Amino acid sequence: MENTHNFILPPKNLIGSGAIKDLPNELLSWKLSKVLIVTDKNMISLGYVENVEKILKSLFISYDIFDGILHPNPTVSFVEDGLTYLNKGLNVFKRNYNLIISIGGGTNHDCAKAIATVATNGGSIIDYEGYNKITKLGIPQIAINTTAGSGAELTMYSIIVDESRKVKMVISSPFLTPFISVNDPIFMTTMPKEVTASSGIDVVSHAIEAYVSTEASPITDSLALEALKLVFEYLPRSYDNGNDLEAREKMMFANIMAGMAFNNAGLGYVHCMAHQLGGFYEQSHGDYNAVLLPYVFEFNSVSIPEQRILKLCEALGTITHNTSQAVGLIIDSVDKLRSKLEIPSKLSAMGLKESDIETLSQNALKDICFFTNPRQGLLEDIISLYKAAF
Amino acid sequence: MENTHNFILPPKNLIGSGAIKDLPNELLSWKLSKVLIVTDKNMISLGYVENVEKILKSLFISYDIFDGILHPNPTVSFVEDGLTYLNKGLNVFKRNYNLIISIGGGTNHDCAKAIATVATNGGSIIDYEGYNKITKLGIPQIAINTTAGSGAELTMYSIIVDESRKVKMVISSPFLTPFISVNDPIFMTTMPKEVTASSGIDVVSHAIEAYVSTEASPITDSLALEALKLVFEYLPRSYDNGNDLEAREKMMFANIMAGMAFNNAGLGYVHCMAHQLGGFYEQSHGDYNAVLLPYVFEFNSVSIPEQRILKLCEALGTITHNTSQAVGLIIDSVDKLRSKLEIPSKLSAMGLKESDIETLSQNALKDICFFTNPRQGLLEDIISLYKAAF
Repeated sequence: MENTHNFILPPKNLIGSGAIKDLPNELLSWKLSKVLIVTDKNMISLGYVENVEKILKSLFISYDIFDGILHPNPTVSFVEDGLTYLNKGLNVFKRNYNLIISIGGGTNHDCAKAIATVATNGGSIIDYEGYNKITKLGIPQIAINTTAGSGAELTMYSIIVDESRKVKMVISSPFLTPFISVNDPIFMTTMPKEVTASSGIDVVSHAIEAYVSTEASPITDSLALEALKLVFEYLPRSYDNGNDLEAREKMMFANIMAGMAFNNAGLGYVHCMAHQLGGFYEQSHGDYNAVLLPYVFEFNSVSIPEQRILKLCEALGTITHNTSQAVGLIIDSVDKLRSKLEIPSKLSAMGLKESDIETLSQNALKDICFFTNPRQGLLEDIISLYKAAF
Repeated sequence: MENTHNFILPPKNLIGSGAIKDLPNELLSWKLSKVLIVTDKNMISLGYVENVEKILKSLFISYDIFDGILHPNPTVSFVEDGLTYLNKGLNVFKRNYNLIISIGGGTNHDCAKAIATVATNGGSIIDYEGYNKITKLGIPQIAINTTAGSGAELTMYSIIVDESRKVKMVISSPFLTPFISVNDPIFMTTMPKEVTASSGIDVVSHAIEAYVSTEASPITDSLALEALKLVFEYLPRSYDNGNDLEAREKMMFANIMAGMAFNNAGLGYVHCMAHQLGGFYEQSHGDYNAVLLPYVFEFNSVSIPEQRILKLCEALGTITHNTSQAVGLIIDSVDKLRSKLEIPSKLSAMGLKESDIETLSQNALKDICFFTNPRQGLLEDIISLYKAAF
């Protein structure tokens, strides 16, 4: 019987305080000399882009900056604007970019992945929606991460909103994996409170969905459970005090570990459903996940082996042998964390209109995260879950 | 303060029953068409090489086979023989090899890494002893693993015996990392009992040394502890019954996870000292580790934070709050496992001569695994440890 659990990751991940100092060596050894930086104006004002520019200048590497990611929901328009910028550089200024450096959170990395892919594969990013539709390597990408986090700096996913259909597309291919990820807390201390909350609780949804996924393995399990322990201990601390460097560092690890887990185990209905909300409304992705997670977990719980529910509950701090008690405790823990982070408890407070639920549910059924959810549901189930969280 | 924990791994790791079936797709997408297989005659008689040949033939990929790894202790001679074979292919038959596929256990992968490196970097493999001496990518390597295991199929280490100095050299560089590792239990079921034992207990020494290393991180900790849980549960089973597929699969995961951990956290005195024994005598590497581990762990225990000792003890099955009791329990667990696997309890039964101890100890001080050991010792300490385990 076939039973594969392939494990994909950038070959090199620079991690920890001072990790950015290893970047010059990497650039030298790969001889990549014409760089397109993909970022947003906020990263420029924070001085993060300048940090990277200094490195490039010291190595006499020429670069241009595309800072057209205008809000934290990645869209086809941003990707197309980036491609226009790239092609202008190529055609007008003969800039034959052989490296893309994305600086920012998941939105910037995801847009950069899409730009890098379309630049070499042609067409539109919409052509690559789904699993394994990309046939060629993109322009090599280094992703410098500033949140904890989406995990996008190390995953093979790019999540892009097609505004015309109001669908948040999942594009998945090993070719989307950056070849170097950078997670240095020096780029994370200025993260605003609401981004700390939203991206931090996103880590919980990554870890829990990866753990209960039909594609989970001992590798992804160990990473997911340890990531959860870290988030529940350190997210409240980094939320309360953004300068708590120990908490920031531990959240950085939690993000990486949950990213490694879901990149290889996949996700589930929480993400299917949150992606659709992201196609329609403007709340942060992590906030949608935070609200949906308890409802989806309860729905899934009948399909998760009892021993695994108990182990998950133990990772959140309570040893029990009673499965239904464990389900309750897990849900309570997520709810308490969400409430501590001042994230609303219902989707209606995040823009959801009841009249959109039917369409959102139909779209959710087509999301590729659907397939790795532990319990396979029908349209009615998705509708009920949206309504419960309404 | 700088505090980096970079994480390096092959970008793609094919894992699980049937994983080998993903290899054709990889070969097609990387367009690598002239292959040198590095292996040994036993892999040929077991039919494992033929499995790979069939895949290459079906893709019209030309290949040659170097089967000159003559015993399970990787030597400079094997590397030089491999290079002679490679250069003959290149010069006489115009075979411009652009891919090396190693098939076997750690010995074959380590020799293949060395051949791939010298082929592009020039000189002798001896020139690259130590950390980060290699300056160029080698010929790209795919490592198909048949043991559980050395972790060599996914690490940036190559361990080669320089027979002239009787030193087992550690060569470490990110450039040594294979770009695809394959762990498919289909290549593991015929592992002989003594290889199951020796390579299996090697996983314990990888996991414990990575866990107590000065370079450990939350990522390597979670992988190391979970690997240990798997080995203590499943190694006795795969030793008793090589056809126990569940046990083989779990040991495969344990090998991968411990490999991921020590590749990034480093190792310690157990490996420093075992490497030297491997330079002088012929016993399996894992057996030396099994005997040395309890003595080194006791020596190190005063420098390992108490909470971490208790957590390690818990991973081996006992919850206690008494640190010295935990140290005793950890040592007992390793000893019991070693004894169950019918590995001798003393180095004198594995070839060690008392008169060699001084030289071995001096060599051990120069091994790069020395630096990540949690307690820094002197020559006398290493001598005492060898004598205790004598």
